[in-house]
Order: sequence, then structure tokens, then C-alpha cells
Amino acid sequence: MFIFNLSRFGSFLALLLSWVRKLMAESSERSSSTTQEAFGWAARDASGILSPFHFTRRVTGEEDVRLKVLYCGVCHTDLHTARNDFGFSSYPIVLGHEITGVVTEVGSNVRKFKVGDTVGVGCLVDSCRTCENCKADLESYCPGQELTYTIFPTDGPVNHGGFSDVMVVNQDFVVGIPDKFPLDGAAPLLCAGITVYSPMRYFGLDRPGTRLGVVGLGGLGHAAVKFGKAFGANVTVISTSPSKEKEALQRLGADSFLVSRNPDQMQAAVGTLDGIIDTVAASHDLSQLIDLLKTNGKLVIVGAFLEPWQLPAIPMLNGRKLVAGSQIGGIKETHEMMNFAAEHNITADVEVIPMDYINTAMERLAKGDVKYRFVIDVGNTLMK
Amino acid sequence: MFIFNLSRFGSFLALLLSWVRKLMAESSERSSSTTQEAFGWAARDASGILSPFHFTRRVTGEEDVRLKVLYCGVCHTDLHTARNDFGFSSYPIVLGHEITGVVTEVGSNVRKFKVGDTVGVGCLVDSCRTCENCKADLESYCPGQELTYTIFPTDGPVNHGGFSDVMVVNQDFVVGIPDKFPLDGAAPLLCAGITVYSPMRYFGLDRPGTRLGVVGLGGLGHAAVKFGKAFGANVTVISTSPSKEKEALQRLGADSFLVSRNPDQMQAAVGTLDGIIDTVAASHDLSQLIDLLKTNGKLVIVGAFLEPWQLPAIPMLNGRKLVAGSQIGGIKETHEMMNFAAEHNITADVEVIPMDYINTAMERLAKGDVKYRFVIDVGNTLMK
Repeated sequence: MFIFNLSRFGSFLALLLSWVRKLMAESSERSSSTTQEAFGWAARDASGILSPFHFTRRVTGEEDVRLKVLYCGVCHTDLHTARNDFGFSSYPIVLGHEITGVVTEVGSNVRKFKVGDTVGVGCLVDSCRTCENCKADLESYCPGQELTYTIFPTDGPVNHGGFSDVMVVNQDFVVGIPDKFPLDGAAPLLCAGITVYSPMRYFGLDRPGTRLGVVGLGGLGHAAVKFGKAFGANVTVISTSPSKEKEALQRLGADSFLVSRNPDQMQAAVGTLDGIIDTVAASHDLSQLIDLLKTNGKLVIVGAFLEPWQLPAIPMLNGRKLVAGSQIGGIKETHEMMNFAAEHNITADVEVIPMDYINTAMERLAKGDVKYRFVIDVGNTLMK
Repeated sequence: MFIFNLSRFGSFLALLLSWVRKLMAESSERSSSTTQEAFGWAARDASGILSPFHFTRRVTGEEDVRLKVLYCGVCHTDLHTARNDFGFSSYPIVLGHEITGVVTEVGSNVRKFKVGDTVGVGCLVDSCRTCENCKADLESYCPGQELTYTIFPTDGPVNHGGFSDVMVVNQDFVVGIPDKFPLDGAAPLLCAGITVYSPMRYFGLDRPGTRLGVVGLGGLGHAAVKFGKAFGANVTVISTSPSKEKEALQRLGADSFLVSRNPDQMQAAVGTLDGIIDTVAASHDLSQLIDLLKTNGKLVIVGAFLEPWQLPAIPMLNGRKLVAGSQIGGIKETHEMMNFAAEHNITADVEVIPMDYINTAMERLAKGDVKYRFVIDVGNTLMK
């Protein structure tokens, strides 16, 4: 019985080994058949220095669009993630979530795009599709959203962003870009642009004649001025830097300019604004902004600073004023924003740089030395 | 020439004296013809103790309604003003701004009311009539508004409130009260009621199915529960006091109850509410309330506490949440609220007291020992 059993065990072992070999062969085959080569520049550690990096992306699935990346904007979040400012960066990580390019392959079920289309990818590449927010076209507020590159801790594979030659993205998270719309100036609209456009729409600051304040004149702020003017608003830029006045009024077309450190100017403007888009990503005094609002005025904060927001009670109560936070819009609204921008010829003002300038650009970005967005010419300058 | 001049001076002097006598006579006549006797109870100093007080009101002008006061609610603001908590009380001061009564005289141009009508007067007796807010039926946010009794420093005469036998009020600031609607339970609606009704309307928390939180179960909070239920909301009461659960659920008809000091209960309710009306007039943690809100949730603060409101940045940004202040509504909305209340049989739960109980009532109010509003039976108990 022992022999008999051993014999049976021997047969079982042989079968098992055969299965294992087969599975390993399939796995190997699947591995090569489920990924494709990709190349970009990645941050390797908290120094934040980027360098060339070979990696893989999934092959183009039935619902996927593959695009050749042509341009990618450089956002403050890229800088924060590169330097591990949030405290949970995964390395190596390829940054970039303001991506424009051209479709080079589509999956068999893709109906929204075809090869040759100019398209963009913003901060998101997927969401849960089932929650209340997803059903309301607010994927940007879906708790199960998948970011274009990994920022928050994840159990799954790390996502890599647009400082790379190729992206593979589900068609539902790809944004069409109208023909002939400049792909360099369009790239920052996919994060900076939609971040200011969305709250202006949602909070009703998109009506002609609205008296709109824009705090901070950087990547987000300059886009807010442009969208505000296109909506027909009367736009006041509020900045700590008197040196930006000429730029704001003459180049960007703002209607007025306030130096937030000038008490006389600020006092004279008390109670004059219907709403404010506050783009400053560092702690600052909100009381003086609330004072600028009329009754029912709205202060919408889109610049991420982590200190608690301090609001003065009496002006809030006496003026029925509101303070809100807001992020990027959902995908449907991003399409709408891109079409609106193309229609009104709104692009970000960009400084186009080669890929190998990125580390210098990051240094300059940290100092605020850019008007108004670095955009990497990935298509022409990413060299293997 | 000197004589001549003296002569002319003598004539001028005689004429002047004659004018002065005439003016003094007219003034004396006008003084008695422009005021009428009134009687109430007034605070005399920062002890806040009220005692009987004779004073005058203007006679009933062409646009005025005179009413015999029947009931007057006792609000926390009365307590604060009596005790000079705001630091600028004028003494003596007759308090009371939740006034109901019956019209006893109308001016020649009054078309809105007639003798015998049951009416109310809330926190305001006039406004500038010309500013943007007045034109938008938001007299409650008019910078030139005239309060029913004087709270803020004024160069003009002191206004006295409803702890008195008679009120004389411009017809535009008198609120009709539907026939047979109880005048004791209606009185607090003119301040506490409209303070919660107005933001529920303005911020869209008045839709059937809204998941509404009400923080604090006092004069304002219990009215918010009643209006919320009448709007068809699912109402959650949030309180520091577990002892209020039975009251909230069984007597007031709330759907659920959270003890804000119970972390498990609060955690289980994260992300469940569309909006919150926060009636607590003392500094408290707003973060945990913001966590209770869904995406796009609204925290509306109507309880006046003077410390800065501290909001956590990330939940505000990640959920497009808003925090707002709000006060009483305008007169048009107060009419609407009163009609809605009558239609839905919403009155404040009141403890009716005689006038001479007011000092004890003030002590009990300071301790929160009232369900939910003291209302003085002025008509039957104010004795000269």
C-alpha cells in the first residue's frame, strides 16, 4: 500500500510539475504580452532629482487608448511628489499629469477616439464608476479614483505619468483636444485650467458682470483671469507683488489690481466682489479676502495649503458669505472646459523646455520663477 | 445812525424774541404730539436685572402700525444685551425682538394691515431701502438696518423692544400672522425660526430627501428640526447631550441622533449628510461636522460665536465642501416663513411666563434651562 501510494504520489508529483511548467510558460508569455516598453524621466528619491528611466506600461486593452506624449506641463504637485513633501512618495516615480499627445493605437471597443486624434490626459486615469460622485460626473471626488501617477500609498502597481514617451489610458479618461488647438498651451488646462474653471462654473461665478477676484498670479491664477474674462466677468487680481500689476492688466487683461499688503487699496475695495478664486498654495490671511466680498460673496480656495483655514465669524454671519474648497472637475466638465478654451482661444502661457532641463525647471518652479507654466516638449526632446 | 441802528436792532430783537417764543410753543406742542406713552421692563445696567420702565414711542405716523404687544420671546441676544456682553449696550434698554400682538391703530397710508389684525415684529424695524441688499429683499443684510432695540452704538435715539405694552413700526417691517395661529408659539419664529428657515431655503437644504444635520437642540435647533421635517428632509440631530436623544426622536420627530462626543457614532456617520445647520453659540470643533458631510456638503453656521472658525483644508478641498454664515431672512422671506409655519402647524415649543418672572427666566436661559423658548405673556401680565 505504501508502494502503491508512493507510486500514486509519484504520478501526482509529475502531473503537478507539468502544471507548474505550463503555468510558468504561460505566465512568461502573458508577462511579455501584457506590457509594453516605456521610457521617461523619474524621481528616484526625496532629492527630487529626475533622471532617465525604463519601465513598462500595460498593453493597449480593449477600452484603452495609447498616445504618444508630445507635451507635458510641470505642476507644483510634481515638485511636491518628487521631493516627498507629502511624505508617502513611491520611488522611482514618473511625474506629469498635464499631458497632450496624439493617439497611436486604440482598443477594439474604443469608439470615442481614433488613431491620429489629438488628445489629453489630466490628473485621473480611472475611478470606481459606481459611487454617487462617479454617477454625477464628479470622478474628481470619487474615493476610488486612480491618479495618473501614484501620489498616495497604494497596494497595487505604481502608476507613472506623462514625463514619458507613451501613455495607455482607458478611453473614458481621455480628453479630446480640438483640431489646431496648440498642444503645448493646452496641456496645463488639464490640471491648472480645470481647477479654476470648475469652481467658477459650480459656484456661479461664470456670469457676465460678475465681479471676480483672483488671488495669486501663477499657473492657476493666470488661467482664472483668462476664463473670467471669457465669461464676461470684471476681474480683479489680488497679489502680494506690486510688480505683477502691469502684467495682470496689460498682458492678461484683468480690470484691476490690488496689492494685498497695501491696506489702503484693500480697504477701498471692501465689499466689492461677488466671488474670489484663491489659488495661493501657502498659508495666508483669509480675513482680508472675506472683507472684499459683498453680501452672499463666495471665497473658493483651490490652492492646497494644509494649515487650518481661519475665518472671522462676524463678517461671515453678517454677509452670508461662504468659503469652499474645490479641486479639478470631472471628465465631462474637462471636455467642456477644453472646448470652451478652444472656442475662446484660451491657452496657458507656457515656457516650453526640453526634457533634460526638468531639474533646473523644478528649481525655478520652487522659487516661483516661471510665467506661468513649464511645459516639457516631450515629443521632440525625450531621448533614450 | 447809531440810534437809528439801535432802533432797528430793537425791532429785530423784538421780532426774534417773538419767533423764539413761537418756536418754543410749537416745539412743546410737537413734543407732546409726536410721542405717546409706553411702558415696559428695561435693563438698567450691566447687572442685566430688568425692572419696570416708563418711556415714550413716536406717535403712529402715516406709514406706521401700532400694535398692542401680546407675547414676546426671550432670545439669547436679549441676555447678552442686558448684561453688556457685546460691550456697547445703551441703558436703560427695553429688550425683546420676537413680538406678536394685535394692531390697534394704523397710519393714513397703511394698506397692508388694519386694526384687529394679528401681526409680528422681529429683529428689524427699518432699513435704508436703497442699497443692493434692500432691493433684493435682504434687509437683514442692509448696512443701514434699524434694529428693533438698540444693540450697536448709535447717534440717534435708542430703540426699545417688545418687553413693553405697545410697538409703533413702519408697515413694511410688520409681519402678518395667519388667523388662529397661536401667538405665543409664533413669537419665536420671528427670530429663531427665520434664522434657521432662511439658510435652509437659500442653501437648497429644503428639498425632500435632503439629509440634514442640526447641531444643538435649543431655540434655533428645535425649530430647524421642525422645518426640516416639514421640507421632507431626513433629519439628524447632533448634540453633546445623550439625554436629548429621546426628546429629539420622539417629541420633535428627528430621524436620528448623534452624540458629538461619541467617536464611534460620529465615525459611522462620516460622509452621510448633505447639509448641516449649526446653531451652537459657543466655540466648538467644526472638523468633525465637516467630516459628516458628503461631497458638495454645506455647513451653515447660524450660532454666533466670536472665535475664528477653524476649517481643515484637505476635507474642504477633497469634498468641495462649503462653510457659510447666515442670519435672519429679509421681511419678504419672514412673511413666507410665517405662512409656511402656519400651513405646516409649526410653532416653537415655549414656556410661557409672566413679565415679573423675566429675571429668573434670564438666569435659567443662561444655564440653558428652557425647552425651548421663554415667551412672556405681555398682554396679560405687564402691570403698570
